[in-house]
Amino acid sequence: MTASDADRLARVALTRIAEPGHVGLLGLVAATGAEAALAELSADPVLGPRLDAVDPERELAAAARRGLRFVVPGDDEWPPALDDLQTAEPVQERGGVPLGLWVRGPLRLDQLAGSLAVVGARTATTYGSDLAADLAATVGQAGRAIVSGAAFGIDFAAHRGAIAVGAPTVAVLACGADRVYPQAHQQLIDHLAAEGAVVSETAPGGAPMRVRFLSRNRIIAALSGGTVVVEAALRSGALNTANWAGRLNRPVMGVPGPVTSASSAGVHQLIRTGAATLVTSGEDVLELLGAAGEHVLDIPRGKDRPRDALSHLQRRVLDAVPVSRGAPSTSVAHVAGLAAEEVHATLLALEARGMVEVDDDGWRLAALAHD
Amino acid sequence: MTASDADRLARVALTRIAEPGHVGLLGLVAATGAEAALAELSADPVLGPRLDAVDPERELAAAARRGLRFVVPGDDEWPPALDDLQTAEPVQERGGVPLGLWVRGPLRLDQLAGSLAVVGARTATTYGSDLAADLAATVGQAGRAIVSGAAFGIDFAAHRGAIAVGAPTVAVLACGADRVYPQAHQQLIDHLAAEGAVVSETAPGGAPMRVRFLSRNRIIAALSGGTVVVEAALRSGALNTANWAGRLNRPVMGVPGPVTSASSAGVHQLIRTGAATLVTSGEDVLELLGAAGEHVLDIPRGKDRPRDALSHLQRRVLDAVPVSRGAPSTSVAHVAGLAAEEVHATLLALEARGMVEVDDDGWRLAALAHD
Repeated sequence: MTASDADRLARVALTRIAEPGHVGLLGLVAATGAEAALAELSADPVLGPRLDAVDPERELAAAARRGLRFVVPGDDEWPPALDDLQTAEPVQERGGVPLGLWVRGPLRLDQLAGSLAVVGARTATTYGSDLAADLAATVGQAGRAIVSGAAFGIDFAAHRGAIAVGAPTVAVLACGADRVYPQAHQQLIDHLAAEGAVVSETAPGGAPMRVRFLSRNRIIAALSGGTVVVEAALRSGALNTANWAGRLNRPVMGVPGPVTSASSAGVHQLIRTGAATLVTSGEDVLELLGAAGEHVLDIPRGKDRPRDALSHLQRRVLDAVPVSRGAPSTSVAHVAGLAAEEVHATLLALEARGMVEVDDDGWRLAALAHD
Repeated sequence: MTASDADRLARVALTRIAEPGHVGLLGLVAATGAEAALAELSADPVLGPRLDAVDPERELAAAARRGLRFVVPGDDEWPPALDDLQTAEPVQERGGVPLGLWVRGPLRLDQLAGSLAVVGARTATTYGSDLAADLAATVGQAGRAIVSGAAFGIDFAAHRGAIAVGAPTVAVLACGADRVYPQAHQQLIDHLAAEGAVVSETAPGGAPMRVRFLSRNRIIAALSGGTVVVEAALRSGALNTANWAGRLNRPVMGVPGPVTSASSAGVHQLIRTGAATLVTSGEDVLELLGAAGEHVLDIPRGKDRPRDALSHLQRRVLDAVPVSRGAPSTSVAHVAGLAAEEVHATLLALEARGMVEVDDDGWRLAALAHD
């Protein structure tokens, strides 16, 4: 089933007169339908001429040439989960069911019912990035897609963790789905467009403006079956996504960290106030995601990673070894929360497997352990 | 007001025939009173001869010579909070209002209404020990006493933090209050007996047996207005104390840590299941302790510690510097969750203040920063 052409074209036209998540416009569309809303706004002396200048058929065709489709309510691919936005209170004048989502990539949006949104700080620590990648890999291996925003830090790590195990992963962008933001993530976003999906409520060509990030966050929360915040400072944008997930009655989860780390302060606040449940592993996340869309995707397992063969202790030590510049085994033991002797013996075993190596400063990850 | 001599002597005698927290005996005393319970048990063919052999007046006199008093229900010093144990379900056959508490030291038990119990791992990390000391100092400076168990690790750090700011602090022991356990804490326990209080339900001379730790934990939870767990592995005894605090309707709080640290796993479990509220600072703890016995003690502020003069950033970096063997500034940055350059500059500033120093392995705390 697909939406009527007239409805789809009306929605394309309407995307040109208001920002994503414009509460007034989306409320009007929800009340009257897109065609009636378009007719009403076309009579407006200010908006009318702007709407007249839009050629939605040409826009759809141009988008299709760039590999973009416009998924709207009524399409088979439309995820019913997005309709939950209809009744959720707006935040900062942003909210509502999007007019449609522009999608680039083979993954269908209706396959995201049991997916996990992984969000967090752009200025993530090694601790946070490693955890985000591990969480995403564990949840991905259980057959669930990973939704994030392709930003630096936690977002990047989450996509990377999913890709490492061959799990589907989706980036929801604040700019148009045909653009790349941040530019440094060109390769990641190309990969997602080829193997997963790049999604945006913003019309093609749209720039990543600040207000669009707020609207984008509600799409991440609504598309996924639950949201986990890995690291977030106080006032981080990730807290906005968590807020949306909570208001949409999706599980909101947070990974704690040292209370001395500012990158965890926002997560601790969420947990403390009861807005998020504390999770420490992908297994915890899977338990909380529960039956919602359980194992909806039957994805092939990625090739086994070397770390899959490690004992629990070995993984824990490996997780505490720095990526770039080495650290003495006592520091590794401190980070791992283990006894120094135990850690030293384990480091030697990991070295024998080629997973860690020694530099002038101490122990660091060997290339093999990265993937 | 004091309890009658006959009641007090009956309670002393009864402590000689059952372990602390013996549900059957304490239930009988609660139902009939101590004198009637003693009369009933004296007729028992097994217990009678054992009770006949006790000379409670002599025991009280001997205890008094060692500086011990026996505080029982009806005494002015008896804290009504202990009576909450009457209705709490036993755990592992231990529970009930104690027959009395043996106390050594000038601090009165009825001054503990707004106090905080700080409990946690014996094998604490530097992170946990520093936090426990900081929490205890902040809460102590707000005029509240710190209750703990004088054990290695978190207990020691909690007492130390309270002592550093001149706040009252109390150790509840599993052995007799005239004994020292662990032996390495002779100096701490002597100090507590001189300035605060050393408390036990176990009769004088009693050894620190395993079952007595479980009974002891309920006394820590009941004496204090709330319990915070700083670090605890899964199955740690500190979780037993937290469990008692929850069943006594006292606030239960937990300080999170890295999910890669086994020393925080038990705390994370408490928070995740809703048994504890996440706290990150002494300010959080004070908020949750709330009005219960607020500022019951008017204690003099201790002399200012050097760290009081530091900026927030400096304190955060200082908290990430190891105590004994040094670590490179990159490791310190990792633990602190801060950028390496920022941390390096801050370490130099702290070195200029004499708070950190460099050894062969990197940065470590200087003696001045310890207290």
